[in-house]
Amino acid sequence: MNTTRARTLCAATLVCALAFATAVAQANDGLPSWNDGPAKAAIVQFVKDVTTEGGKDYVPPAERIAVFDNDGTLWAEQPMYFQLAFALDRVKALAPQHPEWKTKEPFASLLKGDLKGALAGGERALLEIMAVTHTGMTTEEFEKIVKDWLSTAKHPPFKRPYNEVVYQPMLELLAYLRANGFKTFIVSGGGVEFMRAWVEKVYGIPPEQVVGSMGKQKFELRDGKPVLVKLPAVDFVDDKEGKPIGIQKFIGRRPIAAFGNSDGDLQMLQWTAAGAGPRFMGLVHHTDAEREWAYDRKSHVGQLDKALDEAMAKGWTVVDMKRDWKRVFPFE
Amino acid sequence: MNTTRARTLCAATLVCALAFATAVAQANDGLPSWNDGPAKAAIVQFVKDVTTEGGKDYVPPAERIAVFDNDGTLWAEQPMYFQLAFALDRVKALAPQHPEWKTKEPFASLLKGDLKGALAGGERALLEIMAVTHTGMTTEEFEKIVKDWLSTAKHPPFKRPYNEVVYQPMLELLAYLRANGFKTFIVSGGGVEFMRAWVEKVYGIPPEQVVGSMGKQKFELRDGKPVLVKLPAVDFVDDKEGKPIGIQKFIGRRPIAAFGNSDGDLQMLQWTAAGAGPRFMGLVHHTDAEREWAYDRKSHVGQLDKALDEAMAKGWTVVDMKRDWKRVFPFE
Repeated sequence: MNTTRARTLCAATLVCALAFATAVAQANDGLPSWNDGPAKAAIVQFVKDVTTEGGKDYVPPAERIAVFDNDGTLWAEQPMYFQLAFALDRVKALAPQHPEWKTKEPFASLLKGDLKGALAGGERALLEIMAVTHTGMTTEEFEKIVKDWLSTAKHPPFKRPYNEVVYQPMLELLAYLRANGFKTFIVSGGGVEFMRAWVEKVYGIPPEQVVGSMGKQKFELRDGKPVLVKLPAVDFVDDKEGKPIGIQKFIGRRPIAAFGNSDGDLQMLQWTAAGAGPRFMGLVHHTDAEREWAYDRKSHVGQLDKALDEAMAKGWTVVDMKRDWKRVFPFE
Repeated sequence: MNTTRARTLCAATLVCALAFATAVAQANDGLPSWNDGPAKAAIVQFVKDVTTEGGKDYVPPAERIAVFDNDGTLWAEQPMYFQLAFALDRVKALAPQHPEWKTKEPFASLLKGDLKGALAGGERALLEIMAVTHTGMTTEEFEKIVKDWLSTAKHPPFKRPYNEVVYQPMLELLAYLRANGFKTFIVSGGGVEFMRAWVEKVYGIPPEQVVGSMGKQKFELRDGKPVLVKLPAVDFVDDKEGKPIGIQKFIGRRPIAAFGNSDGDLQMLQWTAAGAGPRFMGLVHHTDAEREWAYDRKSHVGQLDKALDEAMAKGWTVVDMKRDWKRVFPFE
């Protein structure tokens, strides 16, 4: 509704004036893409509780740490993890320099467009794909490769750059928490250097507040200039039990709020819940097959089963995408 | 000088008024414990350059990352690394529960007060001492042990709690940089959890801005409550080549300013220096045997040899403790 027109239509009736004031207040609450309902109410109440000075649940700003999973929580993860799409695109781009891939799995299948065949080799096949696409270059070279990919690749159903396929309500939530003195972190199973290349611009989260999986690196002087070379060896996997460990290693302070969307986030939510004082545990439940996707207990990507049971048993907030989100993507 | 008295004495003479204004400006520059000289001038000029909007060396606040070594840079490291003093005190405290230590090295020598004998076993002896004092407990238990130790142990020559044996000029420098929009980080060879227990209170640096060496951890549910258990396995050593790697892993952005005091900081300084735009590389040179200690090229603790050569060759700032610091410790 156009606000000027609304004001004119409503003029001079008290009820209408009140309704208008409420509408404006809602639009100004920092969460305009959230429908009124239990999820939004729980968020707003929690933030009010921890920011009310003198209140029994007040938390000083330095301790207002909020952590967010990325895949399926801040940006989409279907039809495949976006970092896997990046890796597959890189294999294609690098293929001309690797004629041997024509007969070597998992590359041979991949280059024929047979993803299922390529991934039939299981974890080993995946690690081989990650090694050739994510290692062997310097950290600066890798950052440039990721940025170039984001500026050209398009997410298949939405025909948008991958870093536009992010959830508008979650962008608003990040900004809302920061406006209330929170420090927002990503704690994701995704590669930390893959994320750091773009998250500051998209989410307003600086690189030093990104925790993720990572490979080993090597310091070298090349012609007197120091570089860090990415090595084909896994250093840390920031998933499941790895998430609370990643939080402890990289942040060193227990969060008071955590948001995830899958069983990979369960331990992070448990770790957050186990602290003293007010806590907020949230799950994004993908329930909207029309605007996004609907998947949970049986999904291969972003399986949400045990964490959903625990959320229901413990009264954590489950965000029902279809019910709770007025708008899913910024480009809608 | 009492300012009211100075004002009264000076009243009505122009020269005196100017002198008074200068004295006040110096006292208010945020670095009162630094003598005027090349080191302070270089710091002030650098900060002015990167914070002057529209200037050719302007750096946006988000990129104003400053990293500091801890041992010998922010707090003292003589007569032994303070974390080693902590470990030795813990061995003594735990000895009654370990009668077998009476005949087992390195503990037998340690308990007889023979540190040299205990450390004759080299790295393996040191790792054994670290394992029994730093692992086998939860992260929360360890934090409490460190805090309890700091509240009772005294640094031998100064008879002060160890976390008071910190450098007043460096405390001022940290605050000065933060007041100018910098984000200050510790990047130290010391244990990250040992430091995080106290640095926020002492340096104003929150746990999430501390990078250090660390052991592996394990996530466990104990009676349904999640805990992180510290394991006797080294995960990451944040020293020498490890420092730029630690910066990349934990911060993910190259610093524009770095301060160290030993050869263990050389690669961190090289990595900082190799970025584009204005850079500040600083070394604290321990030159004051009267107020603190004097040591450099031949020292077993905090050896400063190659980094001193490179600093001189490349024009990095070398802080001469005797010459540049008006006051060394806050308790003086």
